[in-house]
Amino acid sequence: MTGQGERLARVALSVVAEPGDDRLLALVERLGADLVLDRLRSEAALAPRFHGLEPARVLDDAVRAGLRFVVPGDEEWPASLDDLAAVASLQRRGGVPVGLWVRGPARLDRLAASVAVVGSRSATTYGADVAAGIGADLAHAGRPVVSGGAFGIDQAAHRGALAADGTSVAVLACGADRVYPEAHRRLIEHLGAEGAIVSETAPGGAPMRVRFLARNRLIAALTTGTVVVEAALRSGALNTANWAGRLNRPLMGVPGPVTSGSSQGVHQLVRSGAASLVTSGADVLEVVGAMGEHLQVEPRGPERPRDRLSHDQLQVLDAVPLAAGAVVDSIARTAGLGVGPVREALGALVRLDLVEREGSGWRLAAPARE
Amino acid sequence: MTGQGERLARVALSVVAEPGDDRLLALVERLGADLVLDRLRSEAALAPRFHGLEPARVLDDAVRAGLRFVVPGDEEWPASLDDLAAVASLQRRGGVPVGLWVRGPARLDRLAASVAVVGSRSATTYGADVAAGIGADLAHAGRPVVSGGAFGIDQAAHRGALAADGTSVAVLACGADRVYPEAHRRLIEHLGAEGAIVSETAPGGAPMRVRFLARNRLIAALTTGTVVVEAALRSGALNTANWAGRLNRPLMGVPGPVTSGSSQGVHQLVRSGAASLVTSGADVLEVVGAMGEHLQVEPRGPERPRDRLSHDQLQVLDAVPLAAGAVVDSIARTAGLGVGPVREALGALVRLDLVEREGSGWRLAAPARE
Repeated sequence: MTGQGERLARVALSVVAEPGDDRLLALVERLGADLVLDRLRSEAALAPRFHGLEPARVLDDAVRAGLRFVVPGDEEWPASLDDLAAVASLQRRGGVPVGLWVRGPARLDRLAASVAVVGSRSATTYGADVAAGIGADLAHAGRPVVSGGAFGIDQAAHRGALAADGTSVAVLACGADRVYPEAHRRLIEHLGAEGAIVSETAPGGAPMRVRFLARNRLIAALTTGTVVVEAALRSGALNTANWAGRLNRPLMGVPGPVTSGSSQGVHQLVRSGAASLVTSGADVLEVVGAMGEHLQVEPRGPERPRDRLSHDQLQVLDAVPLAAGAVVDSIARTAGLGVGPVREALGALVRLDLVEREGSGWRLAAPARE
Repeated sequence: MTGQGERLARVALSVVAEPGDDRLLALVERLGADLVLDRLRSEAALAPRFHGLEPARVLDDAVRAGLRFVVPGDEEWPASLDDLAAVASLQRRGGVPVGLWVRGPARLDRLAASVAVVGSRSATTYGADVAAGIGADLAHAGRPVVSGGAFGIDQAAHRGALAADGTSVAVLACGADRVYPEAHRRLIEHLGAEGAIVSETAPGGAPMRVRFLARNRLIAALTTGTVVVEAALRSGALNTANWAGRLNRPLMGVPGPVTSGSSQGVHQLVRSGAASLVTSGADVLEVVGAMGEHLQVEPRGPERPRDRLSHDQLQVLDAVPLAAGAVVDSIARTAGLGVGPVREALGALVRLDLVEREGSGWRLAAPARE
């Protein structure tokens, strides 16, 4: 358990620093929050940021608003986030957050099997339907669904999971006490009541671009894999996809019509090899599942009468013409079989509705013509 | 140039044997057509097949009907077909045809750069539109388009190529003098007049299932790569796809809505790694092109004003809130910049229509909110 001093230092850092500031977070990793905070306090240029800041009061107010502040070392701290330290030290991007503000009953340490479902805010109805379906499939498999609470794909994924009585978590770019976008008030309140609202931004913080980008890394890091359902070539969802790649988490893309701009970004991810193609929740579970856990049976078309034919019957069926009928002799020649076995096979094929009479000959019946 | 005796022996084999008979074709490769024909003639069981057969007359009749018979050794023989010998000896499937019956001005030895575009007979309008577009793109790039003349994707691919004044070739399962399906009489006559109709089946031969399967191997072997546009899980197009794989030819798949059964087979090919995903004729050209020849510029969204901003301007833009305005001091704190540079940057951002006044503060203008 992290001491109260360290916790309050992290609260203070959460207020004065921007989410995902790689230099600051690297220092915190190396020196601890207390020391970093002391240093920042001593820098004259930053003095205005500390003006009137009382971390204990920030924390109290947050708790009264139903929030909690989860920091590394807490039982609820999700170990998956620690992977951000490796990426930060190699690529000087992001880093482990000083802490996460959380509202809602879902515990962050129970998200180890969760899956991110993200995509365009300007989703098509196709994309929204697919995202909702995947959200529901994941929920049925007991997998929490993590997304960004945004319009379009995010919303559909959350709703799909909630409709299937699953756990869903929204990671927001604004404070976890706020609602953004405002039009999603009901959805976000629902997630706060049944799942969780998570943010690296301190309570009251407004959604700003830099915070969206920092937020995206958390969506990728909290989850065991990321599914992009629709994304145009410049979609913010591709930023989350990049983070999944940096974190070596499986990245998946749902294809769509090549004529739809909303699928272009996804197709590019698949074409470049960054993402694997998935078409359903079952496909997603196969990719993120423990080895063998969700191995899917290859989908097959429905069984056809042809599948149960003997070798002779197949030979004969292949020798029966499509349109104009052929006499038994001609069929026997083509099939390379004697007339006797051919007559026998024809009888069986007629009973199976695969072959029919045509004048003095035989031809394929409709069900065999495919 | 192949001698007349060998040629007539191959005509005879083309009449008495079924296309793609791997044992027979392997014997022809090893012993030559003359010897194999002699052996077959001596087998009592096959006597009926030879009854009344006069190869010279078959050839004469065919020539009168506008056909020619192209055999290995002829100048027009497409070298690409010889790859079928390797597959046949390793996998005991198919084999090099004894000859091809051809109608139309397109020469088979000019198909080295051709691309196969195949797919479901029961195509959706989406699939047909995409196939026609790819057919046209290939034609514009000077690439002949090869397909099977069937309903759906095949037809659309042929028509797309013809509409772009390109060369298109149909490989049929029936004799090259026949029309199948009958509803495609105009298309097939058009292909015979402008491109070519090709068949391994002797003139007059009816379309039968075994001939469709043998035909599919020729579509894959004649071309430098195969594109599957739509294919349900049991589609015959997947048989052509398998042949492309066996022949080590690039196999490509066009994705579609995951809710469309017509795209399921294609998605499975991409998921399994058998096919690469393509979304356009340009993608196809990149895959089949000689190295570097058709390397595509990665598609990018349109350039945005943001792309031309200075570092300070970007910092300030990221610090400007989305909805409620923020005063200059607050923006400066968030951006970590002095008030002077922030005022300067805000001026530039307003001129670019990225930031606007809101009360005493500033907020993002609509174009910057995406």
